[in-house]
Amino acid sequence: MAGTNSERVMLAEGPAIILVEPQLGENIGMVARAMANFGLVELRLVNPRDGWPSDKARAAASKADHVIDGTVVYDTLEEAIADLNFVYATTARYRDGFKPVRSPVTAAETLRAKFRTGEKTGILFGREKSGLSNEEVALADEIVTFPVNPAFASLNIAQAVLLMSYEWMKSGMEDVHGVPFDAPEQPAATKEQVIGLFEHLEEALDARNYFHPPHKKARMIENLRAVFSRRAFTGPEIHVVRGVISSLDRFARPGQRPPAGKSESEAEATHDDDRDA
Amino acid sequence: MAGTNSERVMLAEGPAIILVEPQLGENIGMVARAMANFGLVELRLVNPRDGWPSDKARAAASKADHVIDGTVVYDTLEEAIADLNFVYATTARYRDGFKPVRSPVTAAETLRAKFRTGEKTGILFGREKSGLSNEEVALADEIVTFPVNPAFASLNIAQAVLLMSYEWMKSGMEDVHGVPFDAPEQPAATKEQVIGLFEHLEEALDARNYFHPPHKKARMIENLRAVFSRRAFTGPEIHVVRGVISSLDRFARPGQRPPAGKSESEAEATHDDDRDA
Repeated sequence: MAGTNSERVMLAEGPAIILVEPQLGENIGMVARAMANFGLVELRLVNPRDGWPSDKARAAASKADHVIDGTVVYDTLEEAIADLNFVYATTARYRDGFKPVRSPVTAAETLRAKFRTGEKTGILFGREKSGLSNEEVALADEIVTFPVNPAFASLNIAQAVLLMSYEWMKSGMEDVHGVPFDAPEQPAATKEQVIGLFEHLEEALDARNYFHPPHKKARMIENLRAVFSRRAFTGPEIHVVRGVISSLDRFARPGQRPPAGKSESEAEATHDDDRDA
Repeated sequence: MAGTNSERVMLAEGPAIILVEPQLGENIGMVARAMANFGLVELRLVNPRDGWPSDKARAAASKADHVIDGTVVYDTLEEAIADLNFVYATTARYRDGFKPVRSPVTAAETLRAKFRTGEKTGILFGREKSGLSNEEVALADEIVTFPVNPAFASLNIAQAVLLMSYEWMKSGMEDVHGVPFDAPEQPAATKEQVIGLFEHLEEALDARNYFHPPHKKARMIENLRAVFSRRAFTGPEIHVVRGVISSLDRFARPGQRPPAGKSESEAEATHDDDRDA
């Protein structure tokens, strides 16, 4: 892809998702959708209860047809993982055994590292009701488990696949704090712009004797400036705020008629010397 | 909770999940389930199309009754967020505006930090078909968006809530690489145990003239030791492997009768000097 290509890239790579004896076509479809959302494409089914293909699966996949069309069915788990180099088993509870247990983050990082060196990997997900058997877990290299509410651990198969697929996607990002789009670059205004705003505001307020009594003026200016600089305004925002001050300033000087319906500005409303009174 | 209390803790805290004009009760139920899985509890609905309460929602919530029972319905989004200090809007695409856009990881960290200082927070999710309007997004402080496959971005509302709830849970963990349970501590065997294994194996092989021709013996031992130490065995594993060697070693010395059905060991099978021939 050219760096500036705006075409939407279809990601389709990464570990195989292997569902062991899935029961509901709808769940298989939701798994396919979750995979497609995060760029996975290779779905393998071991002995699906209601057979394959499945109209219910295709409907629930919500147009993830490339995943549904590529789905391969196997009679046994051994066949389903035969060509893979490294396999995770997902389990919700501790299994007696000597397999390392990993978090989804660690598992995704491991899968990404193996993917980059050309190893073929997969993740096993068990039956809706009963998960994976101990014998099935034993075929995997490591276990992955999800951090859930101890008193409410009820992840279904599509949710579990979604989380692993999401972590897979994140493992390929340079920075998990990054975002695919952002507001245009908004540098903070220069200090000249900020001070210009302060002086504009203070002049307009001074004309109304806002700074009263006079010996409090320095402290009041200090407070005002703190309020108006606690969040750094951008240049365009300074422009907007100065427009507001100019607009409020119009027609309202002593001796001029205030416009109909003019409401008190917030600064005036919180000040005990209300010039509109 | 006492540190050693094995009772399952019901997590029920954190940001409010606010669904704006959700259409399907089933989706609301799946949202409640996703929330409960990751310890969230406060669900707010703005003007749900099919009314509230909803039997379909309760059924889809898969026993997350504490979330369903506590759900509050509002007429407007403004009322639904009135008591909150900080609000995220979830959107799938760039909106013209000046709101910062955050990743789910950053958003969850921010929500966690505000939670710890006592601020009330919420996350807005839009309609199934059309998401949030620009006016609704404008009521939020910041935007959160999900890293998805550019050519297949089809997260539904329950999936989006699941991911944010999951990141919320992770933001409270000391280490996202941590796991809720793990295999018992498995220290690597001592070098004395490892060398004991090597010597045991080499002695048994030597008795069968495995190391042939003699001038290659040193190199063959080096290779064997590399194979048997690439992954660090634990003490109990060393015990198992030595048991295997002892068992294979039995009855098979020259002059002894091999047991019926004895298969070649892998090391023998890959060696050109097959003593069974």
